[in-house]
Amino acid sequence: MPHFKLTIAYDGTGLVGWQRQASGVSVQGLLEDALSELDGREVAVAGAGRTDAGVHALAQVATASLERVIDGHGVVRALNTRLPESVRVLDALEVPATFHARFTARSKTYRYRIWNGDVLPPFESRYVWHVPAPPLDAGAMAQAALLLQGSHDFAAFQGAGTEPHSTERIIFSSSFRPLDDGALAAESARVVGDADRVVGALIAYEICGNGFLRHMVRNIVGTLVEVGRRRRPAAWVEEVLRSRARARAGPTAPAEGLFLVSVDYMQTP
Amino acid sequence: MPHFKLTIAYDGTGLVGWQRQASGVSVQGLLEDALSELDGREVAVAGAGRTDAGVHALAQVATASLERVIDGHGVVRALNTRLPESVRVLDALEVPATFHARFTARSKTYRYRIWNGDVLPPFESRYVWHVPAPPLDAGAMAQAALLLQGSHDFAAFQGAGTEPHSTERIIFSSSFRPLDDGALAAESARVVGDADRVVGALIAYEICGNGFLRHMVRNIVGTLVEVGRRRRPAAWVEEVLRSRARARAGPTAPAEGLFLVSVDYMQTP
Repeated sequence: MPHFKLTIAYDGTGLVGWQRQASGVSVQGLLEDALSELDGREVAVAGAGRTDAGVHALAQVATASLERVIDGHGVVRALNTRLPESVRVLDALEVPATFHARFTARSKTYRYRIWNGDVLPPFESRYVWHVPAPPLDAGAMAQAALLLQGSHDFAAFQGAGTEPHSTERIIFSSSFRPLDDGALAAESARVVGDADRVVGALIAYEICGNGFLRHMVRNIVGTLVEVGRRRRPAAWVEEVLRSRARARAGPTAPAEGLFLVSVDYMQTP
Repeated sequence: MPHFKLTIAYDGTGLVGWQRQASGVSVQGLLEDALSELDGREVAVAGAGRTDAGVHALAQVATASLERVIDGHGVVRALNTRLPESVRVLDALEVPATFHARFTARSKTYRYRIWNGDVLPPFESRYVWHVPAPPLDAGAMAQAALLLQGSHDFAAFQGAGTEPHSTERIIFSSSFRPLDDGALAAESARVVGDADRVVGALIAYEICGNGFLRHMVRNIVGTLVEVGRRRRPAAWVEEVLRSRARARAGPTAPAEGLFLVSVDYMQTP
């Protein structure tokens, strides 16, 4: 009974998210249906994290066991044949039965992409939050982002509708990074002779932690953008954090800018 | 009566192409409708080149005259408000009435993107031709691409259904280029620990010439890929070119991999 670690990329546009729902197309549902067809019986898939409707993944991780004797390459091929183009299995690695996508995960990294220019290039529209000019205050946002690093109670950044036992999480890193992707968009700008302005328009925030509350990354980004818009000073983020009150934080940033980048594990399977 | 040079980016997915058709959504039709609404009368838009259904543009150029007194920024804003997200006006520059998007164009540059890996990342699926492994012979394709440079009769690469006066065109450059875009896809690969293979999977061909026949770039790419697949030697491309017979060339590469990159003009407006 081979047990597989699956690495999956998906464009979340139009999907109801990772988790199987009563209606709508979910990544988990697509994978379970494809694996069940492959294995000739019901197969359950466990994901590392539940991404919301519209959220993308560069490398989500999931685990599943099959009865059929098949190797990793065979699983990748069989799944990609059955899945829509928007969901691709990048890798299937046979791992010990003790390896579980969620329980053995050490950290997850999310990236949030913002387009801070007047004109949103068509090749970016599915993958960013469009925050038109004036330019965001990058320095203040970077300063504010750092305040979230460490072990904190993130109740202020928790979306409604969930009450986990603890809202304490450890954030290993929280920072803005220079972004060299989105090159199709950048090229358009170069042709217009306005490369600097438009290349600088793509801003990426990255956060790595041992776990995330519901809507936590999007609520953090909505809060950081309030600082970037000079409506609040950077230090306000610490105030919000300490308040533990959702009402104190900024709005929830839209789903389409968010990417689950990677999941790291304690054991290297 | 201000005359504008418009620079336009579009995602051609689902569009019938640049030119207005009896049915379906065209870029020209969208622009003319938006400008007519803005100017309160019928406005005609002339494009630098007619891109086919499904073909994209990083910076297509078009010209149009308005009666209304309005500056470039106003035109950009007014058009983008009226256009769908898949079509964006990047720039509107007031130019002399003698400037015409097509007649004064000196050269056009097209890029064709190929994904030469087994698994096509979801973020690339709308913007590449997926040619699965084995890896294409990059050296042979590069050599074959060079044979097209210069002044030639490109009748062998002309799509059916058009008979221009002359099939002679000057190709200033025809080459493959290292590609650093598609970074979202590359990042997925990096996470899987297979960066080299997958980053190398994105191949871009670029061709710059004084004009292009119908389907010419896509027929050239279909022919170059035959060489890349080792079905024909590089020198065969010269044979095809000399034959002037469409039947001798390779198949037409799909529209979704093609981008109009830029249009250059004799006069700098």
